[in-house]
Amino acid sequence: MPLVRIELVEGRTNQQLRKIADAVHAALVETIAIPEQDRFQVITEHETSHLIFDPEYLNIQRSKGIVMIQITMSSGRSLDLRKALFRRIAERLTAEAGIRSEDVLINLVEVAKENWSFGNGIAQYAAA
Amino acid sequence: MPLVRIELVEGRTNQQLRKIADAVHAALVETIAIPEQDRFQVITEHETSHLIFDPEYLNIQRSKGIVMIQITMSSGRSLDLRKALFRRIAERLTAEAGIRSEDVLINLVEVAKENWSFGNGIAQYAAA
Amino acid sequence: MPLVRIELVEGRTNQQLRKIADAVHAALVETIAIPEQDRFQVITEHETSHLIFDPEYLNIQRSKGIVMIQITMSSGRSLDLRKALFRRIAERLTAEAGIRSEDVLINLVEVAKENWSFGNGIAQYAAA
Repeated sequence: MPLVRIELVEGRTNQQLRKIADAVHAALVETIAIPEQDRFQVITEHETSHLIFDPEYLNIQRSKGIVMIQITMSSGRSLDLRKALFRRIAERLTAEAGIRSEDVLINLVEVAKENWSFGNGIAQYAAA
Repeated sequence: MPLVRIELVEGRTNQQLRKIADAVHAALVETIAIPEQDRFQVITEHETSHLIFDPEYLNIQRSKGIVMIQITMSSGRSLDLRKALFRRIAERLTAEAGIRSEDVLINLVEVAKENWSFGNGIAQYAAA
Repeated sequence: MPLVRIELVEGRTNQQLRKIADAVHAALVETIAIPEQDRFQVITEHETSHLIFDPEYLNIQRSKGIVMIQITMSSGRSLDLRKALFRRIAERLTAEAGIRSEDVLINLVEVAKENWSFGNGIAQYAAA
């Protein structure tokens, strides 16, 4: 159910990109109980000129290694769970994919749980 | 008003892509009364490595023919209408664009109806 | 905090793209008090066939110079402020980047203010 969009500057290997995607998914599974198989991710690489970010907003020093992560997911997770998710995504990206913690930008877009169809034209999460 | 993002693995012809986009739009017109001319769609093709999906979440067998559709639209459609939309998108994609029904992933992001400007800097849907 | 996605047909220079991105950001700063440094933008260029738009929905004459702007931001701005934002984005794009006012399409996606992490895995906007 989460639809995860990952945007970064071009130049990484597919193996590096995979580690990044794996780390984000593992954090979702671990912190907010997303099923392991519930994985849908879109990775888009951009030219340097096309991914614009402030290098020090909020006194966080960002580099061209920035990873912008936008996660569309069903609403309903508590603030504590969402905070745990942010923390764990950053921790895992650092430990497992070598991303600087300062370069992890995350945004959550919450939608109604019935706003998903995983195939066959059915809203699988809508109450029967 | 719907802003429709369609993500798929690269390799289709422009004609095939157009049939996919046409089918999605026709389903919106048919089920939730989107005006025929209210059409704004972004198609993005990805390398296989960059579009990650589980091949059997919820026991639905997905292939590399997967079509991920994210529709941003104004809120207010009933659950029945949203279910009809999911069903009809899948039916039309199968009948008109040769997409396996299992390969149709859909997500709706609902926004306030005044959150759109279709040109000239005006919020055309906001009450006068 | 706004995450701004800008989609357009390929063919502009990087300098032209930068002027577009600059104009959108300046309008956000000016109308809804986004901090100057709070800037995160993703520009994606598309083949003509991949960016589909109606050329005259609502009697607005659109061209291939269309600029689709989707802004994810925290909720809470009044309708007047959102209207001012639309107006100012269009005005600045016309004056500073040579975009036809009819070619400015804008959509706002509003999220909870705690749904952002700007680095280090922390939800910087969540109440302490």
